[in-house]
Amino acid sequence: MTDDNQTLREVGEFAVIDRLVAGRRQPDSVLIGPGDDAAVITAPDGRVVISTDMLVQDRHFRRDWSTPHEIGRKAIAQNAADIEAMGARTTAFVVGLGAAADTPARDLQQLSDGLWDEAERAGAAGIVGGDLVSSPLWVVSVTVFGDLAGRAAVTRGGAQAGDIVAVAGHLGSSAAGFELHRAGLIDCEDLRRRHRAPEPPYGQGKAAALAGATAMTDVSDGLLADLGHIAAASGVRIEVTSAALGPDREALAGAAERLGVDPLGWVLGGGEDHALAACFPGAPPAGWRVIGTVSEPGPAGPDVLVDGRRWTGSAGWESFN
Amino acid sequence: MTDDNQTLREVGEFAVIDRLVAGRRQPDSVLIGPGDDAAVITAPDGRVVISTDMLVQDRHFRRDWSTPHEIGRKAIAQNAADIEAMGARTTAFVVGLGAAADTPARDLQQLSDGLWDEAERAGAAGIVGGDLVSSPLWVVSVTVFGDLAGRAAVTRGGAQAGDIVAVAGHLGSSAAGFELHRAGLIDCEDLRRRHRAPEPPYGQGKAAALAGATAMTDVSDGLLADLGHIAAASGVRIEVTSAALGPDREALAGAAERLGVDPLGWVLGGGEDHALAACFPGAPPAGWRVIGTVSEPGPAGPDVLVDGRRWTGSAGWESFN
Repeated sequence: MTDDNQTLREVGEFAVIDRLVAGRRQPDSVLIGPGDDAAVITAPDGRVVISTDMLVQDRHFRRDWSTPHEIGRKAIAQNAADIEAMGARTTAFVVGLGAAADTPARDLQQLSDGLWDEAERAGAAGIVGGDLVSSPLWVVSVTVFGDLAGRAAVTRGGAQAGDIVAVAGHLGSSAAGFELHRAGLIDCEDLRRRHRAPEPPYGQGKAAALAGATAMTDVSDGLLADLGHIAAASGVRIEVTSAALGPDREALAGAAERLGVDPLGWVLGGGEDHALAACFPGAPPAGWRVIGTVSEPGPAGPDVLVDGRRWTGSAGWESFN
Repeated sequence: MTDDNQTLREVGEFAVIDRLVAGRRQPDSVLIGPGDDAAVITAPDGRVVISTDMLVQDRHFRRDWSTPHEIGRKAIAQNAADIEAMGARTTAFVVGLGAAADTPARDLQQLSDGLWDEAERAGAAGIVGGDLVSSPLWVVSVTVFGDLAGRAAVTRGGAQAGDIVAVAGHLGSSAAGFELHRAGLIDCEDLRRRHRAPEPPYGQGKAAALAGATAMTDVSDGLLADLGHIAAASGVRIEVTSAALGPDREALAGAAERLGVDPLGWVLGGGEDHALAACFPGAPPAGWRVIGTVSEPGPAGPDVLVDGRRWTGSAGWESFN
């Protein structure tokens, strides 16, 4: 098209929004979609599950690593994973976008395509509203909504001694992909891609809830850090067996060899894959793999042990470090 | 306190969040509040009203003009106004915050106090979740939720020829306050304050819905621009009588004289006061003032006229200009 190189300033806020909204098919749960002061969606059981995550350029994504489409996918994926982690089904999103006036309008179109593609993957959820503002850095702020279909939410606080600990989804892929990108390596594109656009195990949150999960979280800060949140909220000790993580290490072996590191650090400390970690009173459902057990807390209070000891490597992400 | 000057980096992400959440009383509609992967709130009539607005430093607020408390108030007020504009009651918010690691933790505490104070003003709504990330500029991204109590939402699309057009809240105050700030004047602090922290007419959205409003919007882009959205969505002409805006001009007379301008430009073109504009089949309820009428569209389609003519002054806000 002749206007492929037009900037946001040239196209204008309202015309850009019209283009982003045009032709998108909203799910039936959207009673009023984009274009008014607010959207209205159904909340079938009289409750709505809500989470929000903000991504800032150069902190949560790099424009020289990720395509606009991947940035959109990542923003949706990490939000949808929080809904999965409550045992709910993702129903809708709203998205605040900040970008500079000289941004090509097609970049936002591609980002929007990424948002919608991932929303479809997350369960045919629609993007029901948003805000587009001028910002020197790209900022993508997503709020996600979910439906529990009458079930109780699976919080972080219900784990009990005797439970099995299991995970669904990838562990350490995003961390490995990050290190590959940082080292300027083009090997292991599958891992590098998972850093740019993680792949949460959609549907496994609901499956865990139906299987009686007592506690659940998504792995956003790092497996041990996130299990630590469950341990603290539930008042328990979580014991992880590193041998159970053999397949996870194996999946990262190529990248680990290339970079000369032990992949266990990525598996235990890497976040951003948005795997799910949960505790079950018995065997976990299909798609989950057992990695440990829940026991009574030690004398120093709730904690997480790996092979009976505290892990001394990198434990997870902290926003201001 | 001895740690009053500690930065976000020194306090740490999780400890900062703990401080921001500590001691806040959530309304009864909050089933699960901050601290888990997601929040859960009630949606009593099986629907939820949703809107989102993002504020970026130096674009939507200036840290040398506004206190952190005022920035928090503004972020909540402009979101809550969108819920009012649907005829709904504000029930909850989530807030994404971006700030640099060297930001004093007390600045975020004050911003949080502003968020909560305005949420209280907006109808005792709680802040049920959020995200705190590192960003070189302050970014405040709010998503707001509302309840229609079984009523139909008041969209922009229902105005009909013969309706009365009325407004509730201030017009032009924020624009006048902005110009006073920009000129470095300390006069008219009430107007300057309304620029830094607007005062939407909370409760009047629901009152308008109960009075049978056919269309409604909040005045965020400028009165004529926002009435233009109603005209376009409803397929009507809106005729504004400038004489009816005499009290609005009068309220800005001091600032207008000081700056040597006609205040009508602020009244018609200034946004950000988050007044409400609505169309009624008869007389509006208490708290609303009539400013015009709705008629059949002209030959060129839906439009807005002032005293029978197209307004040629500044018509409103555009994000990328």
